[in-house]
Amino acid sequence: MKLYGYWRSTAAYRVRIALHLKGIEFESVPVHLVKNGGEQHLKQFSTLNPNQLVPCLLDGEFTLNQSLAIIDYLEDVSPQVALYPEDKQLKAQVKALALDIACEIHPLNNLRVQQYLTADLGLSDEKKHDWVNYWMTKGFSAIEQQLQKNSGLYCFGDKVTVADICLVAQVYNAVRFNVDMSEYTLINAIVQRCNELPAFDKAKPENQADAVV
Amino acid sequence: MKLYGYWRSTAAYRVRIALHLKGIEFESVPVHLVKNGGEQHLKQFSTLNPNQLVPCLLDGEFTLNQSLAIIDYLEDVSPQVALYPEDKQLKAQVKALALDIACEIHPLNNLRVQQYLTADLGLSDEKKHDWVNYWMTKGFSAIEQQLQKNSGLYCFGDKVTVADICLVAQVYNAVRFNVDMSEYTLINAIVQRCNELPAFDKAKPENQADAVV
Repeated sequence: MKLYGYWRSTAAYRVRIALHLKGIEFESVPVHLVKNGGEQHLKQFSTLNPNQLVPCLLDGEFTLNQSLAIIDYLEDVSPQVALYPEDKQLKAQVKALALDIACEIHPLNNLRVQQYLTADLGLSDEKKHDWVNYWMTKGFSAIEQQLQKNSGLYCFGDKVTVADICLVAQVYNAVRFNVDMSEYTLINAIVQRCNELPAFDKAKPENQADAVV
Repeated sequence: MKLYGYWRSTAAYRVRIALHLKGIEFESVPVHLVKNGGEQHLKQFSTLNPNQLVPCLLDGEFTLNQSLAIIDYLEDVSPQVALYPEDKQLKAQVKALALDIACEIHPLNNLRVQQYLTADLGLSDEKKHDWVNYWMTKGFSAIEQQLQKNSGLYCFGDKVTVADICLVAQVYNAVRFNVDMSEYTLINAIVQRCNELPAFDKAKPENQADAVV
């Protein structure tokens, strides 16, 4: 498999964690999101994904975008090391928490939105930070509340699920943009526990070949 | 089952279509997103969903938020009238297109974001329309391209899938906000075909008890 991604992309980060947890060998193909106006807009990538967003997975000739669709596909073709619980209701709750991050936090703060805020709306750095902080804080507060119900060592009991994958990547992004995370006790404990696992460590942005640190 | 929703909520609309396609009886509980500062922020709803967003499904005592998690749960507990293809790769592509809408178009244009643009950033109606138009057009253009590969009567071949559900709800939202949809030939044809089906018709915003038309 080939994964088109970028070291700092939150969504590509999710897929890397899933691949490493499942022990699937893959080749990383870096797509630089800033250089040359963004390599994701070049024809060679936009034919793979017309949305011009990473990640994009190639499994032989089969092309797939959207991190959560990719992770669910990996779960279907490599069910060993399951990333969802078997129980249907618990599985649905894991999915809902993953989507709370993927639909309510991440899309409002990703690179192209931040570019629009600055370039098109002319927002100051301070106003842009307010925006990022507002949506992240709103999202994390709701997640912290939900974790009070179901969490154990990880978001749902004592097994790593897709919810943990999304949470770890999103918290990385929050820290990068100086969001104050100090009050999220459960979130911080879970993220720390995840990051001690080898699969999460290998997937970290700073451990990628294209990282600039 | 009980569905907490709002007639004009794009995400609640998706779930209504799925419930009707599967022939599942349900009770609609309206949550008015504007009246009294938004009923979704009241304690009786925010305990069900700390994200303070509709939809939210109650199946007995079991509470679930996030429209796509709800639809996947319905698929698990009521597999008759399947909303995903059996083939793993095709299923993944259906999911990716649904997420292209649920993660890349909808979150940038929903009520709370529009409220932030106006109230917090002080954007004029024209600038707000530019924002909505920008993200919708970007998203729909990519989808129109992808439909050239796989579409038949519907987004993927000749059977209705979750991709069609998300598309119909999103196009309703686009029309509501005066986005010019004239150049999306495939999207328009598919949406029209879907809307001729009784399940899609029953789920329409204007056919809900809480509709104000």
